[in-house]
Amino acid sequence: MPAPLRLGIAGLGTVGVGVIRLVQAEADRIALRAGRPVQIVAVSARDRAKDRGVDLSGFEWEDDAVKLAQRDDIDVYVELMGGDAGPAKASTEAALAAGKDVVTANKALLAHHGQALAETAEAAGRVIRFEAAVAGGIPVIKALTEGLAANRIKRVMGVMNGTCNYILTRMEETGQGYNVLFDECARLGYLEADPNLDVGGIDAGHKLSLLAAIAFGTRVDFANVELKGITDITLEDIRHAADMGYRIKLLGVAQMTGRGLEQRMTPCLVPYGSPLGQLEGGTNMVLLEGSAVGQVVLRGAGAGEGPTASAVMADVIDIARGIRLPVFGQPATTLAEAVPARSATPAPYYLRMSLLDKPGALAKIATCLGEAGISIDQMRQLNQPGEPDEKAIVLIVTHKAAPADVAHATAQFRATGVLLGDPVAIRIEEV
Amino acid sequence: MPAPLRLGIAGLGTVGVGVIRLVQAEADRIALRAGRPVQIVAVSARDRAKDRGVDLSGFEWEDDAVKLAQRDDIDVYVELMGGDAGPAKASTEAALAAGKDVVTANKALLAHHGQALAETAEAAGRVIRFEAAVAGGIPVIKALTEGLAANRIKRVMGVMNGTCNYILTRMEETGQGYNVLFDECARLGYLEADPNLDVGGIDAGHKLSLLAAIAFGTRVDFANVELKGITDITLEDIRHAADMGYRIKLLGVAQMTGRGLEQRMTPCLVPYGSPLGQLEGGTNMVLLEGSAVGQVVLRGAGAGEGPTASAVMADVIDIARGIRLPVFGQPATTLAEAVPARSATPAPYYLRMSLLDKPGALAKIATCLGEAGISIDQMRQLNQPGEPDEKAIVLIVTHKAAPADVAHATAQFRATGVLLGDPVAIRIEEV
Repeated sequence: MPAPLRLGIAGLGTVGVGVIRLVQAEADRIALRAGRPVQIVAVSARDRAKDRGVDLSGFEWEDDAVKLAQRDDIDVYVELMGGDAGPAKASTEAALAAGKDVVTANKALLAHHGQALAETAEAAGRVIRFEAAVAGGIPVIKALTEGLAANRIKRVMGVMNGTCNYILTRMEETGQGYNVLFDECARLGYLEADPNLDVGGIDAGHKLSLLAAIAFGTRVDFANVELKGITDITLEDIRHAADMGYRIKLLGVAQMTGRGLEQRMTPCLVPYGSPLGQLEGGTNMVLLEGSAVGQVVLRGAGAGEGPTASAVMADVIDIARGIRLPVFGQPATTLAEAVPARSATPAPYYLRMSLLDKPGALAKIATCLGEAGISIDQMRQLNQPGEPDEKAIVLIVTHKAAPADVAHATAQFRATGVLLGDPVAIRIEEV
Repeated sequence: MPAPLRLGIAGLGTVGVGVIRLVQAEADRIALRAGRPVQIVAVSARDRAKDRGVDLSGFEWEDDAVKLAQRDDIDVYVELMGGDAGPAKASTEAALAAGKDVVTANKALLAHHGQALAETAEAAGRVIRFEAAVAGGIPVIKALTEGLAANRIKRVMGVMNGTCNYILTRMEETGQGYNVLFDECARLGYLEADPNLDVGGIDAGHKLSLLAAIAFGTRVDFANVELKGITDITLEDIRHAADMGYRIKLLGVAQMTGRGLEQRMTPCLVPYGSPLGQLEGGTNMVLLEGSAVGQVVLRGAGAGEGPTASAVMADVIDIARGIRLPVFGQPATTLAEAVPARSATPAPYYLRMSLLDKPGALAKIATCLGEAGISIDQMRQLNQPGEPDEKAIVLIVTHKAAPADVAHATAQFRATGVLLGDPVAIRIEEV
């Protein structure tokens, strides 16, 4: 039997414990597929005494992840702590400097430092693998880097944050507001330590920036991902969208256009009956569009102990098998600087606003749109006679419009004197 | 620049021409991702003079695929002729004997001779890759062999023959019968030279047997795939199924049970709104269920020039990158003999029959079911008063029942004296 591949695991939260359980449960199967045994040698976490439901007595313990990463008796450093700086970054750099391969679930680290880490790793002949960093158990990094390697990728899109999708799905199901569902997620442990990483779209934006780098052969450019979270999404908009045949999803889109690279992770309306529209709860879905293959869609659990451990171990098994690829699928030094597109591709927009219910109000709004060059596909006026101030809710679906024109038109709404409160504008992706 | 990886391509039908086009269109991208150029050196096909819409003048020509496979100036033999014997088999064996790696889209060859070819290849230190053989452009072999390598796979299922799915989808859409749509497929070039490979479920059965080998670590066992094609599916059943909330799909299921390995490729009813139920036209979908990852679903084009060429070239790029795995994901000598399950897992069944419309007829049928231990979930009687012989159509959805009990009950229907014609029984998969 060939020598085992020896792992050091830093971070014993849900994912770290999942990896330990999976290595123990499937040791024989993993050895058969990896061509050699995979063995956990040492672990590191903040609190040694904490009961994690797994027996750690067979592993060496390091209080310091950097020390773990440098141990002579490990081949692969498995970084499951998270965070774009601090111990995660220091230990990953230490592992590469010490000649270890790295497997990580850390999208934040790679979104911020992926290029530097990839160049360091490749100069040292080391690999960094990160299947678990994007879309949990779905083998999407592999599909894009290897399965679709012969394609010019046209577009990558998807729902990549299960917590946001859970909140949006449950708002519609239960009729409860955002804040109630946010608190439910906090209780269920679905939120990152900094919840804004989830609900602010940052975590999903990190993931999208990594997919874009592989897809388009460009350096990771998280700074130019247009980010908007779900904190402003109201039950009212979810219901109106449904009435008009749409669902609201936190949707990532990365697309290479003549105007440069578009990357956005924002709430969008998608057709209700489409695969993305039908995506429930914590499930993730990624759509890859290639020049030869057409559209390939992948769906699966976006988080959780088992799915994420499955992705971590797929990377470990690849390393055990001797598979050694550049971090982003081509040498890091050949990745082009991404040129961000100044503006997004035109799209239809959903608009909702409250107007004073008096003659000519709607005409004034329509005029603003017309003057901005935006034509109207659907318009509905919902009167609410019970309200003392006689307001009307107006819903509009536009034909394709440039985002700047939409912003201009909605700014003009204010000058009409018929607008109550702020108008809502949400992009519609015809997936 | 490292030395190019040199290909010899046998078979210049849709897929072969697609590979040539893709290599030409994406040469730079492929070189960047493969770490070296990929070059087509020589080709072989039946008719040299035929106009295929691509320029072959830059390639050496071989009339004989075996000669092509043995050429000193190729590294990888790409077999795109098809067929489970003859030149495809002889040339693949010749390529392995001559020290070449093999990339193939030939599911029939591997379904019949996969074990022997894998053993030959692995003994010689050669690889055989076959992403294009299963589900066209969808990187499902890679997802199963590598992406989910740490999982015990519980079940693999899917729609893997685009032509059958096209026929079934179009029957429902157009209200045309099977024969009309079969002729349409023939005109459109959607059918294999032997159409029974498609509509008889054989082609899809080949694919399922390959997935099962990887999933369960068992030798390919195509002989024990329960096969039933779509030739008996009527418009009537498609419509009744839709009325009851189902769609009919040619569905493959491979599942390891306590009773052995179940493999079947048969028409099934699936819930109308489910992802499989919603699958239209030539699209394929494969569901992989793993112990850690849960369910991963992959969807994409199951055939066609671009998608299949994308899969062929993914394999070629992997070889160029130095990725060398056992053919079925673990050494062929370690694959266990599959023990076929004697009977399929119980499932609900859809039953349709014509009865003499006279008092007590339905009771007699219900009695047959009850005596076979089968309970009824839904029953509908559709009277057709216009018919002279006063017949009634009866539709039944059973609760879960063993296939043998269903066969026994339907055989007993005949003895009731109220049955007209043959009853139809179709399995329902609650996916």
